[in-house]
Amino acid sequence: MSDILTKRADDYAQWYNDLVLKADLAEHSDVRGCMVIKPHGYAIWEKMRDALDGMFKATGHVNAYFPLFIPRSYFAREASHVEGFAKECAVVTHYRLKSDPEKGIVVDPEAKLEEELVVRPTSETIIWNTYKGWIKSYRDLPLLVNQWANVVRWEMRTRLFLRTAEFLWQEGHTAHATRQDAEEETMRMLDVYANFAEEWLAMPVIKGVKTESERFAGAEDTYCIEALMQDGKALQAGTSHFLGQNFAKAFDVVFTNRENRQEHVWATSWGVSTRLMGALIMTHSDDHGLVLPPKLAPVQVVVVPISKNSEQLTAITRHVQPILRSLRERGITVKYDDDDTKKPGWKFAEYEFKGYPVRIAIGPRDLENGTVEVARRDTLEKEILRMTDLAEKIEHLLQAIQSNLYEKALQFREEHTRAVDGYAEFKQAIDEGGFILAHWDGTEATEARIKEETKATIRCIPLSGDPTPGKCMVTGAPSARRVIFARAY
Amino acid sequence: MSDILTKRADDYAQWYNDLVLKADLAEHSDVRGCMVIKPHGYAIWEKMRDALDGMFKATGHVNAYFPLFIPRSYFAREASHVEGFAKECAVVTHYRLKSDPEKGIVVDPEAKLEEELVVRPTSETIIWNTYKGWIKSYRDLPLLVNQWANVVRWEMRTRLFLRTAEFLWQEGHTAHATRQDAEEETMRMLDVYANFAEEWLAMPVIKGVKTESERFAGAEDTYCIEALMQDGKALQAGTSHFLGQNFAKAFDVVFTNRENRQEHVWATSWGVSTRLMGALIMTHSDDHGLVLPPKLAPVQVVVVPISKNSEQLTAITRHVQPILRSLRERGITVKYDDDDTKKPGWKFAEYEFKGYPVRIAIGPRDLENGTVEVARRDTLEKEILRMTDLAEKIEHLLQAIQSNLYEKALQFREEHTRAVDGYAEFKQAIDEGGFILAHWDGTEATEARIKEETKATIRCIPLSGDPTPGKCMVTGAPSARRVIFARAY
Repeated sequence: MSDILTKRADDYAQWYNDLVLKADLAEHSDVRGCMVIKPHGYAIWEKMRDALDGMFKATGHVNAYFPLFIPRSYFAREASHVEGFAKECAVVTHYRLKSDPEKGIVVDPEAKLEEELVVRPTSETIIWNTYKGWIKSYRDLPLLVNQWANVVRWEMRTRLFLRTAEFLWQEGHTAHATRQDAEEETMRMLDVYANFAEEWLAMPVIKGVKTESERFAGAEDTYCIEALMQDGKALQAGTSHFLGQNFAKAFDVVFTNRENRQEHVWATSWGVSTRLMGALIMTHSDDHGLVLPPKLAPVQVVVVPISKNSEQLTAITRHVQPILRSLRERGITVKYDDDDTKKPGWKFAEYEFKGYPVRIAIGPRDLENGTVEVARRDTLEKEILRMTDLAEKIEHLLQAIQSNLYEKALQFREEHTRAVDGYAEFKQAIDEGGFILAHWDGTEATEARIKEETKATIRCIPLSGDPTPGKCMVTGAPSARRVIFARAY
Repeated sequence: MSDILTKRADDYAQWYNDLVLKADLAEHSDVRGCMVIKPHGYAIWEKMRDALDGMFKATGHVNAYFPLFIPRSYFAREASHVEGFAKECAVVTHYRLKSDPEKGIVVDPEAKLEEELVVRPTSETIIWNTYKGWIKSYRDLPLLVNQWANVVRWEMRTRLFLRTAEFLWQEGHTAHATRQDAEEETMRMLDVYANFAEEWLAMPVIKGVKTESERFAGAEDTYCIEALMQDGKALQAGTSHFLGQNFAKAFDVVFTNRENRQEHVWATSWGVSTRLMGALIMTHSDDHGLVLPPKLAPVQVVVVPISKNSEQLTAITRHVQPILRSLRERGITVKYDDDDTKKPGWKFAEYEFKGYPVRIAIGPRDLENGTVEVARRDTLEKEILRMTDLAEKIEHLLQAIQSNLYEKALQFREEHTRAVDGYAEFKQAIDEGGFILAHWDGTEATEARIKEETKATIRCIPLSGDPTPGKCMVTGAPSARRVIFARAY
């Protein structure tokens, strides 16, 4: 199947699009900018969701559900928030259709809403309006709530998973009694995202804080995790916002503190979305198709019998049962594909293309020899293994694949991260791709000029790494430390 | 806390509303007809979702995700479908807000959509439009897809969980090569719903088929499970539709069959929603608050220490650890509430009100005696148990509670189900509440007259029970068998 896939070196964007479509991950719908997430893609997203949900619960969070619709006026209450989202809102204005003898089914003009409803692009406003009723005293805090939901942002240029008008995400919205508690929560969830990206997606990320111009609309500080894709472009994979008291003030949410004084509540919000699917694909996949870290693969091991007749198939099937059982006992998901309407070669190509981490093939010769052929998707290597302790060997192999994918991605990032000092050198480096560490004078004007001239943005001011001050590569003014530039998705 | 709850006998509707609000299950939002599902309510819904999702996967289904929005014209393609839903649609007409110097934030009239988008009230149309691209041959069938999603139906009179403008649900949409396959799928999913209702919600249900007037808009047959609430009113708890080839014809979805001929695809759809939360509450809860079947309780056992000082608390806490551990080893969810800012009496009331199935109290005397006090929520009985094999005893107790709730609900239903023959007798029976088995002549006119005169609807033509023919209680015309009438939610 890999012949149907554009090569990455030929056209990376086309390779990505081909892969998403042909590996049955997602497709465009007829509704502008909205995607259909197909079963294979959704199964991966479900694994992400379950893993993240477990991490949220382990850090004390609970789930809830808030309305899809936000009254227009709520939306307007936090000034910078509405400015950030107003230009890309789906707006509900009517609540009924009717039959028209000439035009067929039309919107009923009689059924106009008194106040229009915005389809949520994010839920700070409706949630903080609700929290007003939930929070009275410091005893009600912290309030640690997460929501899994769909949101809509009317993007003009869309790409499957990376930028779609509707997407799926989670949004945490927490309320705290003190600035310090809220700041700690912001960092805690940033760490959860970073750990999730590295341990589950096998995707190394850099934690940092956004510059003012890249900040979430309504936040005091936006923290992010940034990953580097194989084409040298950056991808923001998750954000955690310290909202200060902005939304509490906009929605008048006050509490009685321990000193019996009224105070506005402190807030955070944090989210990751189906965009992570795009990050996953662009971090590991290759010209042969999808490559999935075993921890997120819907099926980790596929077993394919190689038989010339039904007698052989029966013998193999009988032989395979204890292998399947012992794999499942170790919590490994496995599929035995004994569909005899399809040839083994077709199956091999299909499972390789769709990213099954390990493929086991068993033929009559293997039965005689007590062996199997094991192929790993990440390196495409094959080896003959004895059946003794096979499940244990496969378990180790899956762990090795998970680690290898991470190490490979980390090595790629390290090879594509460098510090530059001069602006000319910077421009050349940006054209070559990767993360560029450079000094910046901290002004929005310089940031905008660099973006204008090079299409590079400041991905973040990293939380770790070399903190040495220097001079801005553009203006020569003092710089507190190097920041990370890249072209980005 | 039970003093804040209206008694069921005084005002059942008020009792329900009080309970949903005060047990922190859900509340009304400021958005007309939309609810906020609070963490305690959402945790129960999550348990339902996970159990159902497992049952769907065990019957070969996969999950996917389709767009929230449906173009107006798609919606209109299946005639009876649009007729059924057009009157209650939220319609998106614009995609941008803007600042107006006088009015503040307003809808930007420049950003009007060429074709309006309907917020999905159900997804048959958008999904069948997608299936057109997925189905070419009988080899692509059956296609067994489910979606977990939010949907919007602009209901004018709403009640928390039972009838809300936005609700959460799952909708299965399957495609088959033959009528028989689709009919079998319709019945398979009806059975899944019935088993789920009985085994997880501990709620007995009657399986049946709807009359034509109660059929889903676009279906050839609608099957349902019907439950009886404590006030004698029926509640439709799930539906499974045989759609024939209606949507395949509307969206031109054909496949090449085994005989190499082009044929329209056969379809089913089936769904249950957060309405099940209402069914759960009204089946088991009482004047003391929520009663939850252990299999759906977010926390099954709460352990409350009874101590006069911190020394006692420390001793109890130490003593409790192996109990918590052995409960968790059996897969029982347990909370140890050692919050010493709240009195045991307050905690008892709180956990009783919120429906924790089992409460264990341990005081200093218990430590001496090697005992604990165990209270079960369903019967409110308490007993002193020796600590030996406590986890095993609790596991059996949870099973006993689950069974007892089912048996109690079944007994209630049996006591409130009866056959009547005359129309006068029927009217009186309907006023008394419950399921009434009566003969009906099979016409829409008679059904409408009965509804008009008694507010009773035909809940279903049951699939089992006495199939003896008779004469319609209203017209005297022949009746194929008794059907089930009730007033309903």
